[in-house]
Amino acid sequence: MVRESEIREGELAVEMPTARDAGLVFIGRIRTPWTSRLEAPRQGRHDGPVCRLEIFDPWVPALKGIDFYSNLEVIYWLHLSRRDLVLQSPKNNKSTRGTFSLRSPQRPNPLGTSIVKLVGVEGNTVLVRGLDCLDETPLVDLKPDRCEYSPLAPPQAGDFEGE
Amino acid sequence: MVRESEIREGELAVEMPTARDAGLVFIGRIRTPWTSRLEAPRQGRHDGPVCRLEIFDPWVPALKGIDFYSNLEVIYWLHLSRRDLVLQSPKNNKSTRGTFSLRSPQRPNPLGTSIVKLVGVEGNTVLVRGLDCLDETPLVDLKPDRCEYSPLAPPQAGDFEGE
Repeated sequence: MVRESEIREGELAVEMPTARDAGLVFIGRIRTPWTSRLEAPRQGRHDGPVCRLEIFDPWVPALKGIDFYSNLEVIYWLHLSRRDLVLQSPKNNKSTRGTFSLRSPQRPNPLGTSIVKLVGVEGNTVLVRGLDCLDETPLVDLKPDRCEYSPLAPPQAGDFEGE
Repeated sequence: MVRESEIREGELAVEMPTARDAGLVFIGRIRTPWTSRLEAPRQGRHDGPVCRLEIFDPWVPALKGIDFYSNLEVIYWLHLSRRDLVLQSPKNNKSTRGTFSLRSPQRPNPLGTSIVKLVGVEGNTVLVRGLDCLDETPLVDLKPDRCEYSPLAPPQAGDFEGE
């Protein structure tokens, strides 16, 4: 069973620094079928339920052209997560792993990322499949999946720096 | 040529809301060969130069087990970016696209994400190839690439919700 907020045997929490190195603005809200961390999927599936990305003003015009892509990268804020764990025990069996070697929602900056399938766009709302987050999760960013995307800006010197 | 901070013909900027819906803590600093936006690659290459992710205290123990993966997802804060553009003209030719249909660094929350190749770990530093960001870019998160990762936590009901 996933954690609600307890610390498990062997885990290590640190004193969380004040998180004000940069500030986020929530650009929207994600609507999914899951209202409890005890039922949400551990990872999204591309044949999973349709979820809704509701974009807030003043960002709606930034959706122009998004339907050009079939796969999008979604970044969201896992607002219920602990941020102070550096060692975690996902199986709750005393064995631990570092937070950066896990895709656990508990992390110093609880950002989730998913690659989703675009289903459609309806006004200020983008319909997608492939999410795993709770209903009402704040949306932070939305961009084309890198695998489908070629930069539109002209080439730069660094583009050609191979080994 | 990439933008420094000018607005181009046809682009649309909005009044940027105060960005305090959530706060980030920078977990480290990225060292790359690029010191100007006019030379950095538009996208990283897996045969590109080795870059260094220097992890700050108190997060170093969170690296435990990271060498288990050959591909990592890196999330960073594009600290020099404008945040107020909703329509952009990457080719500077009057034609515009919405910010969310671009992987441009200019976005309401200027988060960059890259999939990188792990080269090695030396103390508090992770060596990787595949980045495209400027030297001294703040590091926000680091996790296994989803393609290599299977959740360690026990299964949940949502895991089985297909169409």
